[in-house]
Amino acid sequence: MYSFPVGDNGRSPPAVLTIAGSDSGGGAGIQADLKTFTALGCYGASVVTALTAQNTKGVQDVHTIPPQFVEEQLQSVLDDIPVAAIKTGMLSTADVVHTVARALLALRSAPQQQPYPPIVIDPVCVSTSGHTLLEHDALGVLVDELLPLATVLTPNIDEAALLLHHLKPPHAPASISSIGDMLRAACELRCALGDGTAVLLKGGHLPRGGARLADVVSASAESAGTAPYWISGVECEGMVLSCVPGGDPPDAEILLRAAGADPTTAVDVPIAVDVLCERDGGGKGKCVCTLFVRPYLESKNTHGTGCTLSAALACALACALARGEPLVEAVKFATMYTHHGIATAFPIGSGHGPLNHMHALFSRPLNRPTPRDPYPLVRALIRSNADVWKQYVRHDFVRQLGEGTLSRERFLHFIKQDYHYLKYYARANGLLVAKSSAYADFAAAAEIVLAVVRERKMHVAFSAQWGIDLAELESTPESPACTAYGAYIMDVGMQGDAASLLMALAACLLGYGEVGLWLMREAERPQSRVRIEDNPYRKWIEDYSGEGYQAAVKVGIERIEALAVHDPPTPKTLEHWKTIWGRCTRLEKGFWDMAMELS
Amino acid sequence: MYSFPVGDNGRSPPAVLTIAGSDSGGGAGIQADLKTFTALGCYGASVVTALTAQNTKGVQDVHTIPPQFVEEQLQSVLDDIPVAAIKTGMLSTADVVHTVARALLALRSAPQQQPYPPIVIDPVCVSTSGHTLLEHDALGVLVDELLPLATVLTPNIDEAALLLHHLKPPHAPASISSIGDMLRAACELRCALGDGTAVLLKGGHLPRGGARLADVVSASAESAGTAPYWISGVECEGMVLSCVPGGDPPDAEILLRAAGADPTTAVDVPIAVDVLCERDGGGKGKCVCTLFVRPYLESKNTHGTGCTLSAALACALACALARGEPLVEAVKFATMYTHHGIATAFPIGSGHGPLNHMHALFSRPLNRPTPRDPYPLVRALIRSNADVWKQYVRHDFVRQLGEGTLSRERFLHFIKQDYHYLKYYARANGLLVAKSSAYADFAAAAEIVLAVVRERKMHVAFSAQWGIDLAELESTPESPACTAYGAYIMDVGMQGDAASLLMALAACLLGYGEVGLWLMREAERPQSRVRIEDNPYRKWIEDYSGEGYQAAVKVGIERIEALAVHDPPTPKTLEHWKTIWGRCTRLEKGFWDMAMELS
Repeated sequence: MYSFPVGDNGRSPPAVLTIAGSDSGGGAGIQADLKTFTALGCYGASVVTALTAQNTKGVQDVHTIPPQFVEEQLQSVLDDIPVAAIKTGMLSTADVVHTVARALLALRSAPQQQPYPPIVIDPVCVSTSGHTLLEHDALGVLVDELLPLATVLTPNIDEAALLLHHLKPPHAPASISSIGDMLRAACELRCALGDGTAVLLKGGHLPRGGARLADVVSASAESAGTAPYWISGVECEGMVLSCVPGGDPPDAEILLRAAGADPTTAVDVPIAVDVLCERDGGGKGKCVCTLFVRPYLESKNTHGTGCTLSAALACALACALARGEPLVEAVKFATMYTHHGIATAFPIGSGHGPLNHMHALFSRPLNRPTPRDPYPLVRALIRSNADVWKQYVRHDFVRQLGEGTLSRERFLHFIKQDYHYLKYYARANGLLVAKSSAYADFAAAAEIVLAVVRERKMHVAFSAQWGIDLAELESTPESPACTAYGAYIMDVGMQGDAASLLMALAACLLGYGEVGLWLMREAERPQSRVRIEDNPYRKWIEDYSGEGYQAAVKVGIERIEALAVHDPPTPKTLEHWKTIWGRCTRLEKGFWDMAMELS
Repeated sequence: MYSFPVGDNGRSPPAVLTIAGSDSGGGAGIQADLKTFTALGCYGASVVTALTAQNTKGVQDVHTIPPQFVEEQLQSVLDDIPVAAIKTGMLSTADVVHTVARALLALRSAPQQQPYPPIVIDPVCVSTSGHTLLEHDALGVLVDELLPLATVLTPNIDEAALLLHHLKPPHAPASISSIGDMLRAACELRCALGDGTAVLLKGGHLPRGGARLADVVSASAESAGTAPYWISGVECEGMVLSCVPGGDPPDAEILLRAAGADPTTAVDVPIAVDVLCERDGGGKGKCVCTLFVRPYLESKNTHGTGCTLSAALACALACALARGEPLVEAVKFATMYTHHGIATAFPIGSGHGPLNHMHALFSRPLNRPTPRDPYPLVRALIRSNADVWKQYVRHDFVRQLGEGTLSRERFLHFIKQDYHYLKYYARANGLLVAKSSAYADFAAAAEIVLAVVRERKMHVAFSAQWGIDLAELESTPESPACTAYGAYIMDVGMQGDAASLLMALAACLLGYGEVGLWLMREAERPQSRVRIEDNPYRKWIEDYSGEGYQAAVKVGIERIEALAVHDPPTPKTLEHWKTIWGRCTRLEKGFWDMAMELS
């Protein structure tokens, strides 16, 4: 899979350059290329060779750019940006083709270019709407100067026929109208171009019904039986032929049946096929062909399909090259990206609409941490119900405790209930161990269990100091507010995953830390009414503001953030986390209401 | 939050048009705009007003486009694509400004334009590197013809000063170098422009230290106390002033402390501030100002910041307009998108690098369902370990059962163990009820419990037929292969969420469906060796290939797909699901190995 978790690992994404025309309508040209680069996580640069006044209905006019200015743009990009792959599209005139070829040749010769970036040449000649996008006299320059530099050439069947007429007039096909024709044409073209260039012949323009799954099946000895969508390693007319399927997996008739399809006629469905022809690795110059098969889509939203495919291929090569992956994998990725772009296209304009370039994206609802913003998730949680958070951490109970005016009765009622609550909290951390998978997480939760056991000792000591013994602590009936909070945490732990449980445990840990810091800061203000030395609740304040508890708060914050770094939450997941956080802060406030009301 | 789940709901994303220059380096101009549109899920169209040969080091050359061809591009776009918002950037010459103004005025007058799309004007005059991007004589045309059409004008402080010198020479500020200067300049500018136009004055170019958090705090009566990052509703020099904070939430000293910051000096941190000045709704023409505050970022990657901000604002307005949201929300979104683009920028080129436009994206590892591909998740699961799936659904046990040659001993061993396994399966579905939240999900899982209870009857009947009574079924010791599978499902149920448990339950449901279909299809082939009527296992085959079981398979497949539609899995989540699916298919194969080995 080609996906670039941009910036997550601190590395730059690969830069990809398009050299092509501009489509004002946004569906093709550098616009389609830049959208594709962005959707695939690559950094896009672009050299504009021509402007078109264009929309989904056609090309209304073309403004050509002087070759000199194309060259200036090329220099600006190549002098400064280390491109990992290049694609070319509409080049318009012989002069522009010549200019581009010269710049790419110079790039190849530049000593700092190691490895030399792969080049995808989309030999754009005529638009879908019939507009000439490459002047006739430019074809020779394209063939002689530019194609020898290509890593992959991506013609459609019309362009392949045109190129073959130019390259091999005697062998040129009258037409390309079947998979067999495509295989022959791809091989003729590859052999004519020399050893460094692979040919990806796009079959999307075959007449509907020109390719059916049965055509591919019939070429395969292995697949005659039960697996209509799966063919591999069959010999075909002297070429090595294999097939990358884009349909259902083998042995999965349940999928056909669930979709209401008839498995016995599945081989009759029309398909779209691209043919990749490469030179074999054995040095014999034999053609190695791969078919890329997927269901044929009846759609008028195909404007920019060729641009998108070659752009996606450039992105995949920018990445594949670095990882040593075969060309077939990059082509497979690019054809499927393009296929799904057509499959999910939305209506724009009244003519041939564009593909959906954004089908493989979704939005992060949360920024990743940066040095200036290390805790975006905790910030988002607190912001998500800031009012209730404030009612919790600035509760009258807390305020009176800080001023030393809180009645003993209320404090003791709180301590007794908190004694019960801590049992839930310990048990929930035990449940967290059971729901975790890594030893570090086991240890973290177990440490909290032990910390709770220690915290309980503080409660026992406090209580003793005010004349309440352990038996009374244990036998005090649990208040509904305590049960609500404790049982809610256990329920979240039972129902969801470890991350949800961690959220349920956070409001208590973090809120008491905030209360501790605030009370200590208030106590230390010169104008403070009560000196901390005189506050009967001094130890409570010192415990929660102290180094030990604050270190636990920091660990807790960082553990929560680590969840979002490890697996960035989807909008739904973040909403779920906020719901749990919100309910827990409300239950925390309710806990102090309970103490104030002695309920 | 502005995010467009593109195509998920079958609706088109809003189309946004940029009218601007091209930056070959890809960091600014229409390139930054198209990247922003794509990253925010909008469809981008673009009218190119000028080409630059440009990189991160500066603008090397400019090629202007004839106004006539700018007009042709505008016509192509506006004739065909219903734009939901427009932004303008570099307009280069007076003629181009005039051409654009005329086209936008005509658009406003067009009867079909209801509502009229919001227009964001970024008055690009000079590049960061000092290159003139708007000819001097164009300023008057900009002010007289274009600015009256703006919904929002987004100058930086230099551009604001330039515009004020042109508009109100006597009142123009000598310089804008503080937040106070910015507030005054924004109001002067807004009042000069008329009632329809809001001004967003960008403060990123204030000298470092020109704005500190304390400056904002000091303007606020409310915030003198405890909440340095939170200000609202204060009166300032006769204007209504409020503040959208971009830092930590209030009452969250724990975050400062965890980050190692000193809370007492937090107000001294340098900040970046943008000022939005709008006309109040009360009709008195009073200025309503909002400050957008976030930490100042020391970065050389600021190339294209202005383009990005205005592009993001156009996207937000395209969406906000439809939802009736206030301008402040759109501006808040755009400033924070831009801020995080700087905060997460990666190094490209040797000069002022671009922002990271892709910071808010991640890749879907799974395509969304389409009519031609309704079950992408189940397909991905089966493909993810197709070998083991085949070993499971084409197991020798299955093959022999289909041929009627399976030994009675093996079949009965299987039935006895399956009897035990079904208890786990029923319990796991009970657990699934407990882990679900919706009544429909309760019902679906409970139906499966009831189906298992019925399936058990079939086992009892089978066994009786072969001389095994219920007591023997119950007392047969459970095999390790059965325990491994059953207990694994329960463990997944205990440890994870409902989705994980659903994955663990899928391999059994789907695999038996596939086995049933395959066996029945084999039995029905003319060349089949055993007629179904003669197969001792006929009833077993008929049960799993029958309508009832196949309907349950279809429901199961659709329930699994619904998970991914409801909340598209992240790459990590999909990997997790594949792991569970993979382990279960392996345990299924092990179950049949057990039967064959009588182990």
